[in-house]
Amino acid sequence: MTLQQLLGIRLPVVQAPMAGVQGSALAVAVSNAGGLGSLPCAMLGPEAIRDELAAIVAQTSQPYNVNFFCHAPPVPDAAREAAWRKLLAPYYAEFGIDPQAIPAGPGRRPFSHEAADVLEAFRPPVVSFHFGLPAPDLLARVRSWGAKVLSTATTVAEARWLEAQGVDAVVAQGLEAGGHRGMFLTGDLGTQMGTFALVPQVARAVRIPVIAAGGIADARGVAAVVALGAAGAQLGTAYMLCPEVTTSEPHRAALASDAAQVTALTNLFTGRPSRSIVNRLIRELGPLNAATPAFPLAAAAIAPLRAKAEAAGSGDFSPLWAGQNASACRVVPAATLTGELASGCSG
Amino acid sequence: MTLQQLLGIRLPVVQAPMAGVQGSALAVAVSNAGGLGSLPCAMLGPEAIRDELAAIVAQTSQPYNVNFFCHAPPVPDAAREAAWRKLLAPYYAEFGIDPQAIPAGPGRRPFSHEAADVLEAFRPPVVSFHFGLPAPDLLARVRSWGAKVLSTATTVAEARWLEAQGVDAVVAQGLEAGGHRGMFLTGDLGTQMGTFALVPQVARAVRIPVIAAGGIADARGVAAVVALGAAGAQLGTAYMLCPEVTTSEPHRAALASDAAQVTALTNLFTGRPSRSIVNRLIRELGPLNAATPAFPLAAAAIAPLRAKAEAAGSGDFSPLWAGQNASACRVVPAATLTGELASGCSG
Repeated sequence: MTLQQLLGIRLPVVQAPMAGVQGSALAVAVSNAGGLGSLPCAMLGPEAIRDELAAIVAQTSQPYNVNFFCHAPPVPDAAREAAWRKLLAPYYAEFGIDPQAIPAGPGRRPFSHEAADVLEAFRPPVVSFHFGLPAPDLLARVRSWGAKVLSTATTVAEARWLEAQGVDAVVAQGLEAGGHRGMFLTGDLGTQMGTFALVPQVARAVRIPVIAAGGIADARGVAAVVALGAAGAQLGTAYMLCPEVTTSEPHRAALASDAAQVTALTNLFTGRPSRSIVNRLIRELGPLNAATPAFPLAAAAIAPLRAKAEAAGSGDFSPLWAGQNASACRVVPAATLTGELASGCSG
Repeated sequence: MTLQQLLGIRLPVVQAPMAGVQGSALAVAVSNAGGLGSLPCAMLGPEAIRDELAAIVAQTSQPYNVNFFCHAPPVPDAAREAAWRKLLAPYYAEFGIDPQAIPAGPGRRPFSHEAADVLEAFRPPVVSFHFGLPAPDLLARVRSWGAKVLSTATTVAEARWLEAQGVDAVVAQGLEAGGHRGMFLTGDLGTQMGTFALVPQVARAVRIPVIAAGGIADARGVAAVVALGAAGAQLGTAYMLCPEVTTSEPHRAALASDAAQVTALTNLFTGRPSRSIVNRLIRELGPLNAATPAFPLAAAAIAPLRAKAEAAGSGDFSPLWAGQNASACRVVPAATLTGELASGCSG
């Protein structure tokens, strides 16, 4: 079965869910263009999820994907949080921020029964997960309405594990990819492979369709992952300058500049390694800093710095999520881009 | 002009030069099969280079490549060397090695007039470099007999620099590649991109042919880099189990095992970051250790440990060079493999 048959889509192009920089508008545009649009829900509460799903079903009759994180909620650690804020103290002083006034907060929520309650009313045709899979009872709820289930693998072992759990297709996320590494069976960044190495090894290891992600920027990239054995391609960075995306101005500016040539896997923004364009915070604290609280708690202490900097037009403290290949980013409607991308494969 | 026309070869497949694990036998086999065989000279003195070149021209009339490093020779630093040996002291004790009896030594030599004297007699049709290019007078000598000149780029900036120096083709080395990173304009590993991100960006940035390297394992991989804009593919790891390769038994065993799933960029073996399968030394000292002497001086202190361990059948202290995709390595004649690889492209 092709990926298109499996998901009921016309083009083997999946728009990567990008929490914090896009909502229903991008998903609708991509799904209406024949790809699989995705709604990232990791930073949305139940009401926001409901509103966004309502917007999607009002604007498209095509299949779409809703994406959730499924990390174990962290145990807050006051000493670690204090050490983290101490490291950030010079920045708070620079921006005149009262560190006592910063709210703690989860920042990113794992998939929950509360979220499943909302989904049930919409019965989304595709549900994808990052960081593994939710608990069996939660997964059973998603499957109860016939949703196809996708999840991300960053190693061959993770792909095999997901197949054994019965996912319908696996996203093989190469090291080039922007945003959070989906790794869940390992915390060792040494296991993380480039797309060129990962995709063929995953494609050989599992029987379910493989959706390649990481560094794919244009139709030639889509054709290349198909040559490597992928059934389709997932792209995020390529969509980042589309008008349907809510990317901040500093983020857009960084993506369109030479700064995008240098990215890093950093844990500074959430506590988990994610690929961002290197900015002041990453340069000064180092991309992987041992002082960060557990995912997603690191985000709370960064939030006011980011807000102050962005208000002044600066991305110095923003997570400038990007893959290693932003060179093809263009200001182009998402529907146009989706069609162009799919011209890379005959499938 | 195609890569084949430029280099006078039939198939757009370059066998990556792999110093320490192969000599003329592999180069001859690949060149006779229609690809570009390569003789790595970084670890050979002038007489050995002469002998190997004589063996090549005696066995093939096809074009071949000779490869040299062109690093600046390091200034020995006694304190740094002492610190490095102190770090290794527990291993010397474990193996009963007298640290006073370990000879210092360069390990890898940069291209020199002495080497050029040897080359002149053979006029090799292709000369490739790693770590940039040699001094202008040395490069002029190579060009004097009409040799085509290749060098490695790990960033778009390095590719542009090499094109400006007049190289005939550039090897775009993605992060997946085994062995030494060819980086020379930067020492920042954060700039190093996966093949999927690097190749299209380099192909767009320069007009000379781009040879993709890193993570390519089979005909599908060759087809994929051609889709990304490469004129050809360079493969090393894929050849590592060929009978023409002098790979050590522990190295062969590691390549053929699950251990090959986890590689790291490490500076432990030479002082420069190179990709190796993770072994005991890397696990225990960390892949990137600040105590290593400058390239290539780190190698001398490791040599006796490696010799003792390998004599006992262990690769614990060996540089187990490998790219991130050893999964397709097979015990197959290099000529057979070369033909199979080239079936991935119509060019």
